[in-house]
Amino acid sequence: MSGRLILTLSILGGTGKEGPGLAYRWAQAGYHVVIGSRTPEKAERVAAELNERLERELVVGMGNVEAAEACDIAVLTVPYNAHRDTLEGLKDQLQGKVLVDVTVPLVPPEVSVLKVPPSGSAAQEAQEILGEGVDVVAAFQNVSHVHLLEDHPVPCDVLVCGDHEGAREQVLELVRAARLVGWDAGPLANAIVVEGLTPVLIGINKRHGMKEAGIRITGHPPVEATGPDA
Amino acid sequence: MSGRLILTLSILGGTGKEGPGLAYRWAQAGYHVVIGSRTPEKAERVAAELNERLERELVVGMGNVEAAEACDIAVLTVPYNAHRDTLEGLKDQLQGKVLVDVTVPLVPPEVSVLKVPPSGSAAQEAQEILGEGVDVVAAFQNVSHVHLLEDHPVPCDVLVCGDHEGAREQVLELVRAARLVGWDAGPLANAIVVEGLTPVLIGINKRHGMKEAGIRITGHPPVEATGPDA
Repeated sequence: MSGRLILTLSILGGTGKEGPGLAYRWAQAGYHVVIGSRTPEKAERVAAELNERLERELVVGMGNVEAAEACDIAVLTVPYNAHRDTLEGLKDQLQGKVLVDVTVPLVPPEVSVLKVPPSGSAAQEAQEILGEGVDVVAAFQNVSHVHLLEDHPVPCDVLVCGDHEGAREQVLELVRAARLVGWDAGPLANAIVVEGLTPVLIGINKRHGMKEAGIRITGHPPVEATGPDA
Repeated sequence: MSGRLILTLSILGGTGKEGPGLAYRWAQAGYHVVIGSRTPEKAERVAAELNERLERELVVGMGNVEAAEACDIAVLTVPYNAHRDTLEGLKDQLQGKVLVDVTVPLVPPEVSVLKVPPSGSAAQEAQEILGEGVDVVAAFQNVSHVHLLEDHPVPCDVLVCGDHEGAREQVLELVRAARLVGWDAGPLANAIVVEGLTPVLIGINKRHGMKEAGIRITGHPPVEATGPDA
């Protein structure tokens, strides 16, 4: 972690659905936010769209390698079929950092049934690829991107898994900064549950005629979201 | 399924924590309820305690084999270390029936970390042991027994997994009868998520200073619980 006052968050593969939503909320919270993409022009275009929505020049776009290099904390939002290749290409740049893995091991077209990867979960796979020099934390897999780009409170909590408590705490801070409610869900071995909730929620949408099913933890007192709309 | 008007539900290994709570709610809903145990006297004692609480003679106790024989739908609430032996001993009695597996593959003392069994989940293990003649449905793993024996609305939804839609629907009916909110969570392959939520919730209790963490599905319209207290 750098000694700079304002942390830089790079959202790698950030031009998809989830990346811009997280970028929007973190930029509003005052972080330096970088959108990374294999195609730098695409990242720049998405950053420009976000800045228009934010009405300020808060987000920049660049290639994934430069984005991984530039950040204090990296956030990975790629489809599962690009997960391994992306991480192998960014291994050097990510050493010593926290990587927040948002990836869900969905294998289309059957996206409402859990497919367990050989390592147990995408996040455990990421940890294996990156080695012990990177603190992988699984989070944000269950939140619909539709909510993130709106300004209303999001009706879905965030479960945070990782093997290092300090890294989990940093990510719980990012959850609050995104005006979401987060919960410490323990070690990375539990990521299979958190990732697996996404196909379960997709199936519930389909079978119960809903659109944006999410989860809440009950049994409180809850950890309240911070920020103007919480 | 029998042609009888009132179904008999047998709760196998029903003298523990979860069994009496489910029995209490289903007896109130008008089902014939049997508590099964390896030790028939223990089952009779638990049934007597429930009848006292219910202020009517609604629940009977018997040995697991007789209970499995007598029922239309069986519900299994044993600790994971008794799961395989119990099922192997009841395989014949359960053929042609629905088995609701409430088992969570917890391996004490580390009960806040998911341990994935070789088959993926306890429920998939049950399906392998019992064969295709039994419809195994995973449900009720996340609900604290403390709530079930009280009469207030339970702040935890029930995710229902199984490979046969008709069996899932029958169990969703049992969820409503217990005055809980249920969701169709798809095939048995998703049971790993539902079972795995229990160690995640146990860990959240510990790390967030809570006692009875549960989950709710958001994104509604919800399936409302039925019954006087819902």
